[in-house]
Amino acid sequence: MSFATVVDVLSGKVAVGDEVTVRGWVRTRRDSKAGISFINVHDGSCFDPIQAVVPNTLNNYDNEVLKLTTGCSVAITGTVSESAGKGQSFELQATAVKVFGFVEDPDTYPMSPKPHSMEYLREFAHLRARTNVTGAVMRVRNCLAQALHRFFHEHGYLWVATPIITASDAEGAGELFRVSTLDLMNLPKTDQNEIDFSKDFFGKESYLTVSGQLNVETYACALSKVYTFGPTFRAENSNTSRHLAEFWMVEPEVAFASLDDIAYLAEDMLKYAIRAVLEERADDMAFFQQRIDKEVINRLEHVANNKFVHMDYTDAVEILQNCGKKFEYPVSWGTDLQSEHERYLAEVHVGAPVVLKNYPKGIKAFYMRQNDDGKTVAAMDILAPGIGEIIGGSAREERLDVFDARLAEMGLPVEEYSWYRDLRRYGTVPHAGFGLGFERLVSYVTGMTNIRDVIPFPRAPKSADF
Amino acid sequence: MSFATVVDVLSGKVAVGDEVTVRGWVRTRRDSKAGISFINVHDGSCFDPIQAVVPNTLNNYDNEVLKLTTGCSVAITGTVSESAGKGQSFELQATAVKVFGFVEDPDTYPMSPKPHSMEYLREFAHLRARTNVTGAVMRVRNCLAQALHRFFHEHGYLWVATPIITASDAEGAGELFRVSTLDLMNLPKTDQNEIDFSKDFFGKESYLTVSGQLNVETYACALSKVYTFGPTFRAENSNTSRHLAEFWMVEPEVAFASLDDIAYLAEDMLKYAIRAVLEERADDMAFFQQRIDKEVINRLEHVANNKFVHMDYTDAVEILQNCGKKFEYPVSWGTDLQSEHERYLAEVHVGAPVVLKNYPKGIKAFYMRQNDDGKTVAAMDILAPGIGEIIGGSAREERLDVFDARLAEMGLPVEEYSWYRDLRRYGTVPHAGFGLGFERLVSYVTGMTNIRDVIPFPRAPKSADF
Repeated sequence: MSFATVVDVLSGKVAVGDEVTVRGWVRTRRDSKAGISFINVHDGSCFDPIQAVVPNTLNNYDNEVLKLTTGCSVAITGTVSESAGKGQSFELQATAVKVFGFVEDPDTYPMSPKPHSMEYLREFAHLRARTNVTGAVMRVRNCLAQALHRFFHEHGYLWVATPIITASDAEGAGELFRVSTLDLMNLPKTDQNEIDFSKDFFGKESYLTVSGQLNVETYACALSKVYTFGPTFRAENSNTSRHLAEFWMVEPEVAFASLDDIAYLAEDMLKYAIRAVLEERADDMAFFQQRIDKEVINRLEHVANNKFVHMDYTDAVEILQNCGKKFEYPVSWGTDLQSEHERYLAEVHVGAPVVLKNYPKGIKAFYMRQNDDGKTVAAMDILAPGIGEIIGGSAREERLDVFDARLAEMGLPVEEYSWYRDLRRYGTVPHAGFGLGFERLVSYVTGMTNIRDVIPFPRAPKSADF
Repeated sequence: MSFATVVDVLSGKVAVGDEVTVRGWVRTRRDSKAGISFINVHDGSCFDPIQAVVPNTLNNYDNEVLKLTTGCSVAITGTVSESAGKGQSFELQATAVKVFGFVEDPDTYPMSPKPHSMEYLREFAHLRARTNVTGAVMRVRNCLAQALHRFFHEHGYLWVATPIITASDAEGAGELFRVSTLDLMNLPKTDQNEIDFSKDFFGKESYLTVSGQLNVETYACALSKVYTFGPTFRAENSNTSRHLAEFWMVEPEVAFASLDDIAYLAEDMLKYAIRAVLEERADDMAFFQQRIDKEVINRLEHVANNKFVHMDYTDAVEILQNCGKKFEYPVSWGTDLQSEHERYLAEVHVGAPVVLKNYPKGIKAFYMRQNDDGKTVAAMDILAPGIGEIIGGSAREERLDVFDARLAEMGLPVEEYSWYRDLRRYGTVPHAGFGLGFERLVSYVTGMTNIRDVIPFPRAPKSADF
């Protein structure tokens, strides 16, 4: 007896007439009057379940097969045959059904085969991968992650694990989670009645990272082409469909690269990942197109097949001011664009992803490279139709004197940046990189509108269950 | 003018006679009396630097080229030629040298070209990737990570991101880091004068994960073949060469798998990853063999080419008791084996990796599947010559009644495990998995003895810099 996955049988990898055993969970059972049961079994290997045709001649037909409900676990042995059913390629003519586990009280089974809202499924994050929708999301998510690693590996990039816990507050982006082993009921204090973090595990106040960028720059300035792929954290108290307290980021960093170099890298990377999904997960994408977002495949094909359009921030402001459309937020040079502006540019004005470049320095981070105009920095955002900003990046200021002047201008303490400044003191090189929020990409590719539904166990304010 | 990486030129991908520009950092400069300088440039793309032959006819020869020191960043344009030098395949006949950045005060440059201890390099974690040894470690580390993702992807496994922050203390393995946004100077208290964690970000006391296993089991019980690859944390106050407070774990979990199934999976996975390193990183491995551990390549080839030997814990105890060797710790049935015992078994008794199975239940975790003898559980450790335990895994107890009895026996509160118990209530399946400490693998493969030298920014007690 040999085992086969559902995808192996459905894709024809097992010859018709061969006997195999498929193991998985019952999705549906239908009994015919002729004494035959049709059992659909899924195992996560692809979107579709396989249909097993189970005759009432089996020993356990009455006392087990007829009691199977959604979610029961089984091993079905049978002969592979071509299916007469519509939309099915192959099925199993069952010769044995082994039940591993029934469902305790099928009427209260949380994943019963009726429609569930996404909110409801979130309450059952430990079971929702058994549903069509979450299973499909997780296969696409895996496909994207594998494609991204493959893309970077094929292009000579090294994956670098930047630290999750850091005592360095250099990034200064948003609110931080503290990491500590101090006993809260007996906090050590200094003579000045402040918390004595020298007694804490790391001997300093420590946090969860908000970005691996500054750390990974040290590796780019040694090994040239590197990227991170790891979790990052924001202690922002925002309960929206676009924010998570814990999310995964992909951050390539490239020595000797210009802003345009990394814009093209981002374009190649996105196209590579999207093509991988369209090719490898056509089954799941057909489901998303049908049930979640009618435009999703068109949108992905459009992104994969069109050149991204480069545009200066300054030009974009002029376009937005003169386009005749009334925006909720007014547009003026020097202010950040809002989602409505970004989407207008990508969806209406250009009709393709836009690489928006050279932002006013006042609205961008301290480490971005200043342009010769003295007003803008070499930053870029990629705005995608249907979602807005999906990638943000920049060239990094590699000139020590310019960097130091910028720190002073922003009132940032130069001591905090000693190791970052060392990269500029010792063989400095132009370099650039960008960040991609991985869950935002999964959201974009699947059409799922709430980011909490594209990560296995979402973390948000008041929510860290499981 | 086209750019090329050092590995492209050295491996012959650029035709002899073609002009290219290589960008990187100076490793050494040697000037001949004939007015020619030989500059070795590395860019991280492979172990070896490329030699550029720079004639004194260049404009900036006197005022720039002759001032180049280790660590300076350059772009050297030149014609590729076959090298007459020993051990070098190709070199560059330079026609232009552009200097991006000199090294401020070469005499105090932390990565100056003299021998540095590993302890010293750890102090400069932001610069040490520029050294031969750390560069080689990081390329091998990347190779292993890529190989592991590839292995699982090719075998139909889905990568699942289990949560980093968790309010669930179900694993109960070791000391935890608390994650909080509470103001330590103004801690909210309950009526009972306890800390009021309902006011904290997640509304509950929350921690950094020690393992993704329990979470990923929920995905195995839906999608069958899954794995995690993510950071995990231990707040153990142990300052050893084998412990990190933050390290990466690989944890496959497989529905319908037995203990032997995952032992074979672990064997295949390790062999696949080791072969990838031997094939793809021969340059770095030659360095490790020469400078770090004379036996390292032999050991890896031995592991890659020999069957792992399966052995019962009970038989191992008998072997150790009767082997005539005097151990520091005595061996008796029911106690955990020490490193000296594990290494004796793998190195002396068997001379190959050993899969040690079926441990006494008293020394293993609550979730491991009980064997029919009532005394042992279906757990396995893989012991490798030269390092001892490298992988630990088990079949998981999938029988709800047996699981509940075990919780009661161990005095664990059943309420804490409600979502974990749901997997056993609803279509339970036999399943099994294992954990591989990724840094321990990198350590084993490179021969580096201190685990802090195989992760970019190590975290340990009193150490979270950068």
